[in-house]
Amino acid sequence: MENKYISKRAQKIVPYTYGEQPKDKKYIKLNTNENPYPPSPRAVEVIRNIPADIYKLYSDPSCKELKEAIGDFYNIDANKIFVGNGSDEVLAFSYLAFLDKGDKVIYPDITYSFYTVYSSLYEVEELINPLNDDFSMNLQGFNQDAKVCIITNPNAPTGIALSLEEIEGIIEKNKDKLLIVDEAYIDFGGESAVKLIDKYDNLLVVQTYSKSRSFASLRIGFAMGNPILIEALHKIKDSINPYTLDTIGIKAGAEAMRHKEYFYECCNKIIATRERVKKELAKLGFQGTDSKSNFLFVNHNKVEAKEIFEKLRVEGILVRYFNKAKINNYLRISIGTDEEMDIVIEKLRGIVL
Amino acid sequence: MENKYISKRAQKIVPYTYGEQPKDKKYIKLNTNENPYPPSPRAVEVIRNIPADIYKLYSDPSCKELKEAIGDFYNIDANKIFVGNGSDEVLAFSYLAFLDKGDKVIYPDITYSFYTVYSSLYEVEELINPLNDDFSMNLQGFNQDAKVCIITNPNAPTGIALSLEEIEGIIEKNKDKLLIVDEAYIDFGGESAVKLIDKYDNLLVVQTYSKSRSFASLRIGFAMGNPILIEALHKIKDSINPYTLDTIGIKAGAEAMRHKEYFYECCNKIIATRERVKKELAKLGFQGTDSKSNFLFVNHNKVEAKEIFEKLRVEGILVRYFNKAKINNYLRISIGTDEEMDIVIEKLRGIVL
Repeated sequence: MENKYISKRAQKIVPYTYGEQPKDKKYIKLNTNENPYPPSPRAVEVIRNIPADIYKLYSDPSCKELKEAIGDFYNIDANKIFVGNGSDEVLAFSYLAFLDKGDKVIYPDITYSFYTVYSSLYEVEELINPLNDDFSMNLQGFNQDAKVCIITNPNAPTGIALSLEEIEGIIEKNKDKLLIVDEAYIDFGGESAVKLIDKYDNLLVVQTYSKSRSFASLRIGFAMGNPILIEALHKIKDSINPYTLDTIGIKAGAEAMRHKEYFYECCNKIIATRERVKKELAKLGFQGTDSKSNFLFVNHNKVEAKEIFEKLRVEGILVRYFNKAKINNYLRISIGTDEEMDIVIEKLRGIVL
Repeated sequence: MENKYISKRAQKIVPYTYGEQPKDKKYIKLNTNENPYPPSPRAVEVIRNIPADIYKLYSDPSCKELKEAIGDFYNIDANKIFVGNGSDEVLAFSYLAFLDKGDKVIYPDITYSFYTVYSSLYEVEELINPLNDDFSMNLQGFNQDAKVCIITNPNAPTGIALSLEEIEGIIEKNKDKLLIVDEAYIDFGGESAVKLIDKYDNLLVVQTYSKSRSFASLRIGFAMGNPILIEALHKIKDSINPYTLDTIGIKAGAEAMRHKEYFYECCNKIIATRERVKKELAKLGFQGTDSKSNFLFVNHNKVEAKEIFEKLRVEGILVRYFNKAKINNYLRISIGTDEEMDIVIEKLRGIVL
């Protein structure tokens, strides 16, 4: 892409590679960690009942209703909450709010692969704290000179969770840094660090509606932390796009947050399915991590991951394969419904046995 | 905001000031140029009929359906179209796609006030081409050394439009620059430069659903231009947030674009109301520009704009007042329904006579 009108930045940047969203046929789609269950029916009703006249008006740039619902769920004040267009946007804004060009950010080698794209885009120096050989995190490895540390908890694509005590230990030993805990998968068995935001002013907890809350389509992410951190995120948003959330996202997102029973019911079903599938896969020769997420991260004792990935695709099942050192013999398989997972197990049986 | 975790950028930036969205009482809201009419009823039906099961899935990051509908409307290919979360996001991404730190961008002194915020945020050098005393544009004034030129057409908050010939003249004389034409208000009487995108590779036309298409709530903006420019915007989007549009925006936005008759009907009603109100205001001692937008830009021969603004607010009518040199005795009044504008005229009569 050489063209005198294009910025050097755009010519150089290598964008994030997202899981494919094919339209050629109907797949069992286990490649982007979406929820197999629809969102709260109460939230869907909210969408269907929005009066037509509301649509002509700008959405509320303060997202008051949504922040209050999140605040009620976590028992925190709205001024400790920032909401954005998916957690990706919240993370991108965090780079602008907390890092200047040339500052250092540290994260593991195996983690959400968008961080390295942000570091490149915003010209931030990336420090890598490699995972241990068993994919566990090297807690001491974060003690390097940097301005921000990002930890995905549970980690992706490994699914391994840190305990709240381990997270607090990292915060305590890294007061020179802001710790961003990306909790995209926290509701499937981890413990949220949101409990610590009043105790530490160097902690920002980021969550999303795209996984546990079944609303990947609506684009809602949020951050929770000290009001000074939240204010900085608002300044960035109001300098880029004050209305990143639409009215439907604000209203339906609030109702989904209020509908707690449904949320817990779906999370518990996914956890139960995950544990069952894990045992079934072990019988077929798969080993994996102790995932606390809505996916399994597995490899096989005989057949290569890439081969399994390709054969599953032919069978109409999409999972995620990363052609990346250390994990290129692993598959990340999102947890679907029990019916979907039974088909996956059967197809895998045919492929590996 | 002094805090060791906050970036210098976030400490320094002065965000955009958006029109107030008060919740204290019901206003006649003529301060953010929203459309007084609801969006296409066909588009609203699309929203109400989206199956619940769709919501759990990520939206289509390529926004194929929406791009095709826009392409059909303008008779251009989808690879010449970029869509984003409102035209603000499209403009912010354009800064990243076409300008590096220290590059120069030129625009008028009186125009959409977000450009100067972007220039500050992305550390781009801002050159100003002042409007003439009658608020007309100084066409020769853009011939300065810069990488990008931004023109709002019709201009805001003046409402004055450039003809297609004038736009083409600027493009011809500024081949060293990319010309971004922000056409937020083009459908109320201007002529779109989209006709020129095949002829010139240094033209990007930006439009929005927030004004003429009555969908400010949904957050849809789009850009049209040479595929190389569009590809650069996609690279930036995929390095920040690949899914900035939600499924509802994609589907309802596509249907609104397909429902042409309704769109033209609403635009024509607004134009007719604007011309009628302009004449009524002249009888009350107001003068203004020849607005081709969905707002009037007026001052009064006796009463100061700020006083009128404040008195209207007390009367339950919100208009926009800019406390800025050259225009601080003007009001920008969005065009509402005929019924709303009749109330405004009556209240103004009480204030100025």
